[in-house]
Amino acid sequence: MNEQNFRNLKIMMAYRGTAYHGFQIQNNGITVQEVVEKCVSKVLNEPVTIHGCSRTDAGVHAKQFCFSVKTHSRIANKGFVRGVNGELPKDISILSCEDADPDFHARFSCRGKEYLYLIHNSESKDPFTIDLACHYRRPFHLELVQEAAQHFVGTKDFKSFCASGCAETINTVRTVHSFSLETEGDKIRCYVRGDGFLYNMVRIMVGTLLDVNEGRISVSELDEILLAGNRRRAGRTAPACGLYLNQVFY
Amino acid sequence: MNEQNFRNLKIMMAYRGTAYHGFQIQNNGITVQEVVEKCVSKVLNEPVTIHGCSRTDAGVHAKQFCFSVKTHSRIANKGFVRGVNGELPKDISILSCEDADPDFHARFSCRGKEYLYLIHNSESKDPFTIDLACHYRRPFHLELVQEAAQHFVGTKDFKSFCASGCAETINTVRTVHSFSLETEGDKIRCYVRGDGFLYNMVRIMVGTLLDVNEGRISVSELDEILLAGNRRRAGRTAPACGLYLNQVFY
Repeated sequence: MNEQNFRNLKIMMAYRGTAYHGFQIQNNGITVQEVVEKCVSKVLNEPVTIHGCSRTDAGVHAKQFCFSVKTHSRIANKGFVRGVNGELPKDISILSCEDADPDFHARFSCRGKEYLYLIHNSESKDPFTIDLACHYRRPFHLELVQEAAQHFVGTKDFKSFCASGCAETINTVRTVHSFSLETEGDKIRCYVRGDGFLYNMVRIMVGTLLDVNEGRISVSELDEILLAGNRRRAGRTAPACGLYLNQVFY
Repeated sequence: MNEQNFRNLKIMMAYRGTAYHGFQIQNNGITVQEVVEKCVSKVLNEPVTIHGCSRTDAGVHAKQFCFSVKTHSRIANKGFVRGVNGELPKDISILSCEDADPDFHARFSCRGKEYLYLIHNSESKDPFTIDLACHYRRPFHLELVQEAAQHFVGTKDFKSFCASGCAETINTVRTVHSFSLETEGDKIRCYVRGDGFLYNMVRIMVGTLLDVNEGRISVSELDEILLAGNRRRAGRTAPACGLYLNQVFY
């Protein structure tokens, strides 16, 4: 990219992650990045690389995912949204496009994120949230889980809540700003906000809360599990299909 | 069916209609009835015929659909729900099962129904409601459409709102009890309650309201369209994917 006269675009999109091996390009399966990059390059009429705000795991969804891209194209932002949406498959949607400062980068400029974990809590499955929620059949003790979730709030070392094989082992300290739960009918929504998240961190936190719900882990053990810095001390990893990147903050 | 010692079961289910040619068994495609009948017969350990509360069109969904079935099986109702759910594909779910009076029939005992029509009203598509909502890009004039919808409330001849080829041409008088609209973010929910509905009636009413929204049909024309008794006078037929049988009343 010739660094002169380029525009730096900040783009918001949403995607249903079911059909993809996460966001970031990799060898062993189709990813959101390669599909979007191809469509964006076509509309901008030049080959581009897009920079995403986050990796996401296979099967994880995004209600708001930011990526940035540098281009020489003079296309209007509205025309970009329409043009790329016209090229994209049904499970990916461009929500907005705006011009950003030259040094804006979707990943490095990101100040925080909110994840949503959606649980369908009922004996019967829900035909309308296939691959879009975690189906959880057991009775859910909302107050207990809410109390437990507060142990994750604060600036802490989340090494116990990072998948083994985690690339970011150097610094596993993160700040979780809030962890709240809402129920509506047979749906439970867990909202987690923080400055950043380790690999699988939200899914391991939610899985651990389900273990608390089932009495396998007690609330009083949670601080100890955090201090242990050992993935094996935390609970299970909740399924990818319930997880959404819900908001990104700049 | 030996009419002695049988039980008459009243069963509620939900289904995502995308993969089916409607509820009722037909020759040209797979239907909900044949899939459910096969699973129910297997669990009851005898061949049965299920009686649905309604036909539904190809691609139409149901949040609450009632069917009745007569059986000699002594299976517990909870065991029935679990057993049939274990056999069914992901897009069909049994919600409940109870013993009903011997003369209960899901269709003939039905006193009323509520349909929901779901619209995704935004420039950008929604990856999470693929095949589950009608994507409508134009600005939506809620108050105008709400006013127009009230013209459908009452006991009226809905012949103009019945698809040509409609089997029920003998009596096209129906009572619509209420027609209300709710908005939440970029979603518009239209709820229509009535004692019964003609073939495609809800979809033609919604399509006509979209024509009113776009200024193709004026609110003052609606009563005249109803009086005309002519399908060609009403508006377009809204897509099947936005329609849900939402509640059935007994």
